[in-house]
Amino acid sequence: MAPTPTTTEAAAEQQQQLPRKVLGLAAHDASGNLTPIRISRRNTGDDDVAIKVLYCGICHSDLHTIKNDWKNAIYPVVAGHEITGLVTEVGKNAEGSFKAGDRVGVGCMVNSCRSCESCEEGSENYCSKVVFSYNSLDRDGTVTRGGYSDTVVVDARFVVRFPDALPLDAGAPLLCAGASVYAPMTRHGLAAPGKHVGVIGLGGLGHVAVKFARAFGAKVTVISTSPGKREEALDKVGADAFVLSGDPAEMKAAAGTMHGIINTACAGGAVSMYQYFALLRPHGKMILVGLPEKPLQVPAFALVGGGKTLAGSFIGSVRETQEMLDFAAEHGVAADVEVIGAGEVNTAMERLAKGDVRYRFVIDVGNTLKAD
Amino acid sequence: MAPTPTTTEAAAEQQQQLPRKVLGLAAHDASGNLTPIRISRRNTGDDDVAIKVLYCGICHSDLHTIKNDWKNAIYPVVAGHEITGLVTEVGKNAEGSFKAGDRVGVGCMVNSCRSCESCEEGSENYCSKVVFSYNSLDRDGTVTRGGYSDTVVVDARFVVRFPDALPLDAGAPLLCAGASVYAPMTRHGLAAPGKHVGVIGLGGLGHVAVKFARAFGAKVTVISTSPGKREEALDKVGADAFVLSGDPAEMKAAAGTMHGIINTACAGGAVSMYQYFALLRPHGKMILVGLPEKPLQVPAFALVGGGKTLAGSFIGSVRETQEMLDFAAEHGVAADVEVIGAGEVNTAMERLAKGDVRYRFVIDVGNTLKAD
Repeated sequence: MAPTPTTTEAAAEQQQQLPRKVLGLAAHDASGNLTPIRISRRNTGDDDVAIKVLYCGICHSDLHTIKNDWKNAIYPVVAGHEITGLVTEVGKNAEGSFKAGDRVGVGCMVNSCRSCESCEEGSENYCSKVVFSYNSLDRDGTVTRGGYSDTVVVDARFVVRFPDALPLDAGAPLLCAGASVYAPMTRHGLAAPGKHVGVIGLGGLGHVAVKFARAFGAKVTVISTSPGKREEALDKVGADAFVLSGDPAEMKAAAGTMHGIINTACAGGAVSMYQYFALLRPHGKMILVGLPEKPLQVPAFALVGGGKTLAGSFIGSVRETQEMLDFAAEHGVAADVEVIGAGEVNTAMERLAKGDVRYRFVIDVGNTLKAD
Repeated sequence: MAPTPTTTEAAAEQQQQLPRKVLGLAAHDASGNLTPIRISRRNTGDDDVAIKVLYCGICHSDLHTIKNDWKNAIYPVVAGHEITGLVTEVGKNAEGSFKAGDRVGVGCMVNSCRSCESCEEGSENYCSKVVFSYNSLDRDGTVTRGGYSDTVVVDARFVVRFPDALPLDAGAPLLCAGASVYAPMTRHGLAAPGKHVGVIGLGGLGHVAVKFARAFGAKVTVISTSPGKREEALDKVGADAFVLSGDPAEMKAAAGTMHGIINTACAGGAVSMYQYFALLRPHGKMILVGLPEKPLQVPAFALVGGGKTLAGSFIGSVRETQEMLDFAAEHGVAADVEVIGAGEVNTAMERLAKGDVRYRFVIDVGNTLKAD
């Protein structure tokens, strides 16, 4: 193994020396324009599986990364962390877990330190050295590259089995969006009949949150600033109720009724945060699964008065992701997707930036990614 | 029973018609100056116990209320919700629970609706109709008056047994300050050996939080903006460690080590909140038990990245308060107090406003409250 590079430039260069040449879609600068590119990956190691990618969801964080919004892009960026496909090769240590032809998925992580408390308890997503599926430095010093690519090679510990009942296209977004809402609902005791769950924001994460909450047997209320989302929430996504956050009468009628709120969207000022917390019952929990840029303004009394909680939650562990997929297959939960060809990805990114998608784009990598 | 008054003036007037005349210390306006006053209380009802007050702690919220800082004072205000004393009369429905001569305590609450979910699960402190021990409208329409008084009459459901091993003076502050920190430590899983608990702020609540955490077998670190608190925290209160929040090296050394933080003090801006959350391990919890005036600035990433929690907690239920007193008696936990006479209470309030008390004033009501 080559020495671990100390700069991202060196890492990118080392990456190029890897032996397996595959096709990807890469952004080369902050324009975010995606074009086909030959990239290099490692050969299938003893612990790895190689996967022929069939579909890859487009997460909003892909857009942030290719445009360098977070100032951490290591170009060329090959994004994608909602990856589904078929196993093509299995390293010898992974033979007990996978075989060629298996339907599998890869989510947001491809490695972690494996020795910290989080790793040892199976919460790799909270390992401080977690390696993300793209634009991250792997433990061997190479830069990770994601699922906008015809092939990925991933340590088998970070590969999940994709149930037969779950479609590889509409199921792909579950690997990030699904895990991100399923994990906190189960961890925070919201995944049960009789619970009333609010969902702030009806986008990629929000619409899946509604579906999981319904599948758990909970009552689900979508909370939105936009009157136009009412019909969508109730008729298309299947929420039980809708509350327009700007309507004081609707907010008051729903006050004190919710056991939890999955907040996929909102930073909000002190007044709106106070109003959102008022929707919760005593001991209710708001769980933040998005990363708004501005700090949340949290009035102390909004939390203290009812013994309420604001918790953060970050994707899901490998175990939670597998459990979520199995649950989704059993209960018919999948994302609402618009499947696009690799040639349409730049247009899709423009539409995503405007919120013009119901609710997730998925790239048909298997059929459409060509070198041209 | 008289009809429930609809104004605070009418309630105060109705109060004056109650038959039992007792002595109190009252503030009459926003100067907060306390003077002896004859007040009226109800006779001992079937569900009540009458208590000869011996000691009453001075909580910071007493000061806020008598000065009308929260714009809700119903003058004359007789404050005090850390009340200890001896039972003098017992209503017939309370005879199974108390007898004359019993050592008892009364904390922050004297009534609640008794029918909501919070009441039914024994969390009266989160009942939306909770009646506080003073400056609150009781269910019979009278204004509640607290423990700066030689006698209180309280529904037995809100009276706790005061263990023999616990001193009535140094134990009094446990009824508010003690319950306020004990309840969240037990509810949020911090009350166990092997846990590392941070305490922000070394005042009335903070110093008791340190003592309870130590008694639970946890490691305790005091976090403070003031270098002068280091010796106090370590040598006098018994903390295991001290972190000066303004010292980046100390904060960095403690990062990621705490399971929970009891925040008795700090609102803080986004930067300081981010730094406090960095002290927590993954899934760590900061519990806010104070009510800073300004909204907390909570950067989303501070919570999301480690799956962390900011929770509010408000005093304790009657059951938790009793459990806390029993635990305190068994483990020798009491407040550090300065016992004062009733004639010194105005000076004590001035000193409290300046933070000049280590750590709680307690009024010797039984020996010093006179009409003169």
